Amino acid sequence: MYSTTIDIRVRYGETDQMGYLYYGNYALYYEVGRTDAIRQLGFTYRELEEQGVIMPVAELQVKYLRPAYYDDVITVKTILKSLPDNHKIQFHSELYNQKGELLNVGVTTLAFIDAKNRTRMHMPEVMRQKLAAFF
Amino acid sequence: MYSTTIDIRVRYGETDQMGYLYYGNYALYYEVGRTDAIRQLGFTYRELEEQGVIMPVAELQVKYLRPAYYDDVITVKTILKSLPDNHKIQFHSELYNQKGELLNVGVTTLAFIDAKNRTRMHMPEVMRQKLAAFF
Amino acid sequence: MYSTTIDIRVRYGETDQMGYLYYGNYALYYEVGRTDAIRQLGFTYRELEEQGVIMPVAELQVKYLRPAYYDDVITVKTILKSLPDNHKIQFHSELYNQKGELLNVGVTTLAFIDAKNRTRMHMPEVMRQKLAAFF
Amino acid sequence: MYSTTIDIRVRYGETDQMGYLYYGNYALYYEVGRTDAIRQLGFTYRELEEQGVIMPVAELQVKYLRPAYYDDVITVKTILKSLPDNHKIQFHSELYNQKGELLNVGVTTLAFIDAKNRTRMHMPEVMRQKLAAFF
Repeated sequence: MYSTTIDIRVRYGETDQMGYLYYGNYALYYEVGRTDAIRQLGFTYRELEEQGVIMPVAELQVKYLRPAYYDDVITVKTILKSLPDNHKIQFHSELYNQKGELLNVGVTTLAFIDAKNRTRMHMPEVMRQKLAAFF
Repeated sequence: MYSTTIDIRVRYGETDQMGYLYYGNYALYYEVGRTDAIRQLGFTYRELEEQGVIMPVAELQVKYLRPAYYDDVITVKTILKSLPDNHKIQFHSELYNQKGELLNVGVTTLAFIDAKNRTRMHMPEVMRQKLAAFF
Repeated sequence: MYSTTIDIRVRYGETDQMGYLYYGNYALYYEVGRTDAIRQLGFTYRELEEQGVIMPVAELQVKYLRPAYYDDVITVKTILKSLPDNHKIQFHSELYNQKGELLNVGVTTLAFIDAKNRTRMHMPEVMRQKLAAFF
Repeated sequence: MYSTTIDIRVRYGETDQMGYLYYGNYALYYEVGRTDAIRQLGFTYRELEEQGVIMPVAELQVKYLRPAYYDDVITVKTILKSLPDNHKIQFHSELYNQKGELLNVGVTTLAFIDAKNRTRMHMPEVMRQKLAAFF
């Protein structure tokens, strides 16, 4: 298993008139978590793109357990439970508030795509090598 | 079954550097679809809120089948497959591009919440009466 | 002078916990207005980009006179007061609510940029020809 | 003068298909800067709101000098050049990339509004006292 955490403070513009973090904005938080999980491996998603790999999202599942509020510091835990064995990778996200309460869980499945011809590809070797140590 | 459609044109600011509608922005499109589905019943979600009912999202499931691009006109089909029998309601969303290709499917589950004390409640009677005719 | 109007309904996710359309989201409304102003000339900004022209924003000025609320239908009036004589173009935006009240005025200045080498260029000839009739 | 800085990493969902941080999203960065400037004074904008003060934006001016890119760490410098003497307050924002290049400057003018009756008010005393030391 590979797991990282990063803190994000809820912005005013991310709330809605209900006073909650808007349900669509959690996707941004998961993205920040995934990006940081990759960075902590020693390379970046930005570099992957520069090398011609893009990772569009194929599936998203979210459970909203408790609302997140403006100015809350949300801890985003990003978990990779298994090494991908095909052209997809699945990240689990758990969001906690400052009291340690679980607010939200998400599962994001991304595809590895060759940016040039937009066809499926396997996980880049650099990523597999870095991740292998954790599994 | 109750079903409506509404068209939304993809904004530049909704794309990302991959050139796709960002995966988190589909939630906005579902919202527009749901809001319009309620409006076509003869009242509005805004009125529901003014009467003290809020409907936070409890669950979201998305499958991204094909990307949506800038300036595409997306047809959002919003479907209510059954009448809610508890404090939740589930909307299905299907997004099509101008060629009629299915791009994306989503399922959003919302709770009926009393805005004052933030407790669960049943579907407002006005909504049940309007919807009953379709089931 | 060249001027067009388009209606946009305020989305829930565009409001903030103050109950107002978030101040940063007006930029999206101006963008929709500008895009439509170009479309009504008989071509599209999307086509401009496909032909290698991008138009990043160089300057933005906004006055927020009255708030816009969720579910309001906002009429965005987009005005081109003069033909550009260099590598920039300036659009004026006026936003009105359904009562005809002026909510917001914005001025956006965009540059014409060659997408390949990211250098300044003049307004594409196709655009100049279409606009010339109005000035 | 009162001045603070905070770093923000550009999210993928904040870029557009031009590969730039979307021009409307700078407003969020200014907001994060302002919020942090207030926090570093020893109280929070959130507390102001809980005490019945809201601060909607009245005016915004932006100059886009250089683009910000995905994954860039942007340093947002927030500057208060003078103490407000009426019901408005003006923040200056300067955004720098990791090379120290100035990317963007913004000026945001906010009003002090009584949340209950939505009328103008003066700067809350707690805020004036904290700020007075810097002027």
